[in-house]
Amino acid sequence: MGSQTSGNWKELAQICVKIQQDSIPKQWMLSKDKLPSEETLNVSSVPYDAGTMSAEELEMTAQDAGGLLKAYESGRWTVKQVITAFLKRGTVMQQMTNFATEFLAESALQKAEELDAQFKETGKLSGPLHGIPVSVKEHIGMDGHITHAGFVSKIGNVPKEDALSIQLLKKAGAVIHVRTNQPQSLMHLDSNNNITGMTLNPLNLKLSPGGSSGGEGVSVGSKCSVIGVGTDIGGSVRAPAAFNGCYGLRPTALRVPNLGNFGITAGQESIRGVVGPLGQSVEDLELFMSAILGGKPWDVETMLVPIEWRKLAPNKEMTVGILYDDGIVKPHPPMVRALKIAAEKLNSAGIKVVNWEPFEHQRGWDIVSALYFPQGPSPYLDTFAETGEPVLPLTQHAFNFSSKEPLTIAENWSLNYQKEAYRREYHALMKERGVDFILCPAYPGAGVLQGMAKYWNYTAIWNILDQPASIFPSGVKVDKDIDRPYEGYTPRNGHDEWELKAYDPELMHGFPVCLQLAGKHFHDEEVLQASKLIDAILKK
Amino acid sequence: MGSQTSGNWKELAQICVKIQQDSIPKQWMLSKDKLPSEETLNVSSVPYDAGTMSAEELEMTAQDAGGLLKAYESGRWTVKQVITAFLKRGTVMQQMTNFATEFLAESALQKAEELDAQFKETGKLSGPLHGIPVSVKEHIGMDGHITHAGFVSKIGNVPKEDALSIQLLKKAGAVIHVRTNQPQSLMHLDSNNNITGMTLNPLNLKLSPGGSSGGEGVSVGSKCSVIGVGTDIGGSVRAPAAFNGCYGLRPTALRVPNLGNFGITAGQESIRGVVGPLGQSVEDLELFMSAILGGKPWDVETMLVPIEWRKLAPNKEMTVGILYDDGIVKPHPPMVRALKIAAEKLNSAGIKVVNWEPFEHQRGWDIVSALYFPQGPSPYLDTFAETGEPVLPLTQHAFNFSSKEPLTIAENWSLNYQKEAYRREYHALMKERGVDFILCPAYPGAGVLQGMAKYWNYTAIWNILDQPASIFPSGVKVDKDIDRPYEGYTPRNGHDEWELKAYDPELMHGFPVCLQLAGKHFHDEEVLQASKLIDAILKK
Repeated sequence: MGSQTSGNWKELAQICVKIQQDSIPKQWMLSKDKLPSEETLNVSSVPYDAGTMSAEELEMTAQDAGGLLKAYESGRWTVKQVITAFLKRGTVMQQMTNFATEFLAESALQKAEELDAQFKETGKLSGPLHGIPVSVKEHIGMDGHITHAGFVSKIGNVPKEDALSIQLLKKAGAVIHVRTNQPQSLMHLDSNNNITGMTLNPLNLKLSPGGSSGGEGVSVGSKCSVIGVGTDIGGSVRAPAAFNGCYGLRPTALRVPNLGNFGITAGQESIRGVVGPLGQSVEDLELFMSAILGGKPWDVETMLVPIEWRKLAPNKEMTVGILYDDGIVKPHPPMVRALKIAAEKLNSAGIKVVNWEPFEHQRGWDIVSALYFPQGPSPYLDTFAETGEPVLPLTQHAFNFSSKEPLTIAENWSLNYQKEAYRREYHALMKERGVDFILCPAYPGAGVLQGMAKYWNYTAIWNILDQPASIFPSGVKVDKDIDRPYEGYTPRNGHDEWELKAYDPELMHGFPVCLQLAGKHFHDEEVLQASKLIDAILKK
Repeated sequence: MGSQTSGNWKELAQICVKIQQDSIPKQWMLSKDKLPSEETLNVSSVPYDAGTMSAEELEMTAQDAGGLLKAYESGRWTVKQVITAFLKRGTVMQQMTNFATEFLAESALQKAEELDAQFKETGKLSGPLHGIPVSVKEHIGMDGHITHAGFVSKIGNVPKEDALSIQLLKKAGAVIHVRTNQPQSLMHLDSNNNITGMTLNPLNLKLSPGGSSGGEGVSVGSKCSVIGVGTDIGGSVRAPAAFNGCYGLRPTALRVPNLGNFGITAGQESIRGVVGPLGQSVEDLELFMSAILGGKPWDVETMLVPIEWRKLAPNKEMTVGILYDDGIVKPHPPMVRALKIAAEKLNSAGIKVVNWEPFEHQRGWDIVSALYFPQGPSPYLDTFAETGEPVLPLTQHAFNFSSKEPLTIAENWSLNYQKEAYRREYHALMKERGVDFILCPAYPGAGVLQGMAKYWNYTAIWNILDQPASIFPSGVKVDKDIDRPYEGYTPRNGHDEWELKAYDPELMHGFPVCLQLAGKHFHDEEVLQASKLIDAILKK
């Protein structure tokens, strides 16, 4: 460090910027005069107005995977047509949000042609994800492509094979057409780094796209891909899904492959990062899970547990606990309203709804936050120092969670022990209270200003508990007239005070509110089953 | 340490010795003149000659669980009769081997009466283990009973509830009638400690009973219980099963409950200790697994994976690789002969048999041995120092496996990473070579002199690989005339030299040779299925 620092981070970053820029299909870019004015904050409708996409192409990009599969089977659309439509949409959204690190137009269109030829010849789809446009977070390693995980010094990392999840997706017929952005170190709830920079939220350019799978949030939320592949160790699939109004799942750990994901914490087993899908519907999430597990990943990545995806029959017999407040940070008014409306609708639909009194979420946070950086920040700082890239504010924020000094192995064991005890107790309490699922916020607010996503524990709590959790839209949008700021509320702590001040009804007006549904450990199938039911009820 | 040491370990140990001695059912003890002479090394037939047990009682103790269940169902025997018979046998064997830390005669007989009353009333067995006498290793915590795990300073530890495995066994109808001995620190392949002392092997009192579940080895091998519950992190179920001529299983980790097992490594997740059964037959092992997993332990101990015990149909379609030598320590002549005979018999029975070239077992040992004491020996030494108990030679031997200094978390992560890579590669190789199971020694010798069990890696290799492995008799016994020591063999290393010298055909003559069968990760069911088939073939 210091004078030893090579300080060449800007030049190195340019390697990736060039790859990114070169990869953009220029023919579908909007000229500057066709881009929205600088005052326009919600740019999500631009693809509809820009004129680069036909009505049919717009219809293609409005489908979920099931819709596309039907269209392929009936011969209505070819994969090539569909992939072209998604690339067009992605190109336009990229201009406004910078969500992609690299488009893969050529290989995607080639794969599309192959799939079309195969279908023409056999009359059969090649797999459960035949021709489905899938975007993938950058740090999920890709054969022959720089995979840097948000570290400038890792720009030299070029995997020699695809990550196992990518292999299985390709085998299932998916077309991977774009790689997406993530934050420095992967440890923000937004997506800003020193390489390809900051991703913006197309629903409001001032707001965070969420993170760390923020590029995925935009990609899927803006329908530039149907399914997105993210990773989540504290909310990194769920915050982006929630902030972009789409669907997402953090599965139970050790079901979906991690092999070939790149980062600087290999061998860390105390709190596991998990690959999870984002999608246009709960069915998309289910399709991802069943396709991936159908590939029996445990027969390659022996760390995984050999549990096939279980098909569940629809079932209304369930009890949903509503968590209105985790006892640490009070959710913003529109979030509480969305939960109340959901509770009423579920109740009316004959679902048993109860209040969920949070069980020591601070205890959960104390454990998980200590486990994020058990070596202290120095492995990260050393990695940054290799090129001199600056530490971004939210990276520093995350470092502050954990001890500055490395833990001893004894301390790590103690945290592991506490973690398991907390998991057992939480699970026992859900059984005792007869609660199958917990409906809760994914973040105190429906969205958050760029650079300000600081409170992780509405999502991280399910990481430390290793309980599966999904995201879906509540159907509610922030209404500045209804969702007035709290008056006379005295914050319980610094986080609470920060988040109380962070709520700006004017800024947030019209922003969609998403909700999170957590289930029991390994009840991924039940969580999606319930999410489907709840989603249908909320849409009514 | 030093002058601070309280030095009261002998007095503390006496607390447990008194509990042990008081618990022995005195009425069934042999008087000194009825005990075998001091020159008698094989005392396994003493229960048949001592006259304390009737012929029918001896028949009872010759059953496996299936045999007893049949007798209960038909009304031939009551549970009380059977438990009494096993207590009688245990009392006699205790006098000669010191295998038990505590008999539970009173509570066992009371439970027996309850089960008999229940059966009389309902005509139905109360569960899959109705009336089965089960012995349990001491460190598996028991409500209201000192549970010290081989540390004098832990004699104050009295759990307030049973370990989860014990709870599930009791629920399944098992009668727990005796707790069994283990070594200091649990980290020997024998069973000697500073509390209740050394357990002897009834097949040859000069030889080790194995360990760390050595009390279980004697208990089950000598038919003082039908099923035994041990734990295994490096061979601790399998060495005792092998050295006592019975059956045993180290299951894949995270299937059988660990909750309530006592030790000083809580929160250690890198190399997991596993509870596993010893029994009179492969069917006993299967029954234990299906009974325990039938209790859905994952719904309490959330660390476990929710995979039910799968019932498999008999299947001869399999390929067995024979590992004659791990490339580090050459097995003794009778072991190699037993493997060759097994290979021939399997081949004749139509099973595909191939040679299994070991895949970098030294690499596996380097990883696992470093993970046994990642904090160095100091947490153990500190625990010993609390009472001044001396470090036993095999404890010191185990400490020598790992670094003297604590590893950093970064080093621990690196070992975790190496472990997963090794697991993947080994698994891939089994698939590539088309091998389903590996038949191999559990130890270089069929047995080993007390205090001399030093080479762990014929068993520990399956711990680092987390592959399930069973033990069963080969049907071969050491023959001093056939199994001549190797001549002209040049040892490859110090271990190899030690073990070469350790083979004494005179001493070992007549000792049974057991074999080990390892299967793929999570293929516990397949391992037992194959073990059943192979066992039947070897018995022919």
